Amino acid sequence: MPLKKIKVIAFDADDTLWVNETFFRKAEEEFCELLIDFMPKEQANKLLFDVEMQNLPIYGYGIKPFTLSLIEAAINISNGNVPITLVQKLIDKGKEMLQEPIELIDGIDQTLRQLSQQYRLVVATKGDLLDQERKLIKSGLEKYFHHIEIVSDKTEKNYTKLVKHLDISENEFLMVGNSLKSDILPVLNIGAHAFHIPFHTTWEHEMIHEEITHTNFRSFTKASELLEVL
Amino acid sequence: MPLKKIKVIAFDADDTLWVNETFFRKAEEEFCELLIDFMPKEQANKLLFDVEMQNLPIYGYGIKPFTLSLIEAAINISNGNVPITLVQKLIDKGKEMLQEPIELIDGIDQTLRQLSQQYRLVVATKGDLLDQERKLIKSGLEKYFHHIEIVSDKTEKNYTKLVKHLDISENEFLMVGNSLKSDILPVLNIGAHAFHIPFHTTWEHEMIHEEITHTNFRSFTKASELLEVL
Repeated sequence: MPLKKIKVIAFDADDTLWVNETFFRKAEEEFCELLIDFMPKEQANKLLFDVEMQNLPIYGYGIKPFTLSLIEAAINISNGNVPITLVQKLIDKGKEMLQEPIELIDGIDQTLRQLSQQYRLVVATKGDLLDQERKLIKSGLEKYFHHIEIVSDKTEKNYTKLVKHLDISENEFLMVGNSLKSDILPVLNIGAHAFHIPFHTTWEHEMIHEEITHTNFRSFTKASELLEVL
Repeated sequence: MPLKKIKVIAFDADDTLWVNETFFRKAEEEFCELLIDFMPKEQANKLLFDVEMQNLPIYGYGIKPFTLSLIEAAINISNGNVPITLVQKLIDKGKEMLQEPIELIDGIDQTLRQLSQQYRLVVATKGDLLDQERKLIKSGLEKYFHHIEIVSDKTEKNYTKLVKHLDISENEFLMVGNSLKSDILPVLNIGAHAFHIPFHTTWEHEMIHEEITHTNFRSFTKASELLEVL
């Protein structure tokens, strides 16, 4: 039973511990609504996504990059005719998102409480450190975690560094998360364990369409099911 | 000789390893120039600083927060009359700053090379992870460091966590940096060592006017002088 070896369980944060993607989808909706005079919604949403993808290598992930992309996309969509009051609205929207109340994923508190008695738990996220720290404190989940590990992107290289940094070997490491692309595939590729708990909404950038079968992989429908195997 | 106990030396990044503040000062200059029709330079600069300080608790440190504050300040300064082309210029300015070439601090490469043979070196920064990682790679200094430690702010609490995370005791930790407020005072307060190498430009937010005398404190004029005591 290889799971017996697990020493550290890393949890993804957004959409694994708390709801996140929903707020981005809502913000995109509102953005397209605000720009409806310049472009049909679907087209505006597509253009926003393209701007985000162009900016990703320079800006990275999180709400501040998203806000900057909203402004840039609004300028593009309106051909430079967006009123300045709308730019201010987008800035305000970003700040509002940074202060959104925390909505925990179902059953996560109780699951973490039990797991923290047996394993060292860490948060592994590619979000923005300040934002993630703030969410962790607000969430009331901080007490279950040894610390937060922030990576600029969830690549095999960064997972290898993380495992080394945790002073364990790959097969003692388990990652739990909602994104197959970020939380599962690179982790399996370095020989560690990865458990998938999907969230109902996935950002297009994180989508992969692939069936995963791997001895170190399992999929669950909710957090509390982790307790049945760990 | 208490320095003999030092096991880990943490280096601040911006203005300790490479030039940074100079780019912000230049960007502020250009910003005030762009808005000269709406407000005298000095007043515009003051308003920008106020906006930055208001946003600091939500945005944190770095170029992306700075860019968002530039846009917000431009809207305020112009009373909503700033042309949208100028907003685009500010976005472009932010991207340009994120891609600025690295200018190493004098003597830092050689100093790190020697120190890395005797000590475990880490980077300890409150900047943006992606941006700092990129700079570290571009700088060619990455090979001297064990890893990067990112904190949301350089507080006593975060330094205590960092030391614990490094698995050493406070008196085995030495911080080297250019900011008395961020790199020196909180470090001395937790019983660790702190060496100051001032940079010619200091951001107003980081300024303190205080004479420091402490057995664990030393001040230098350039990086290579570290080698005389370590």
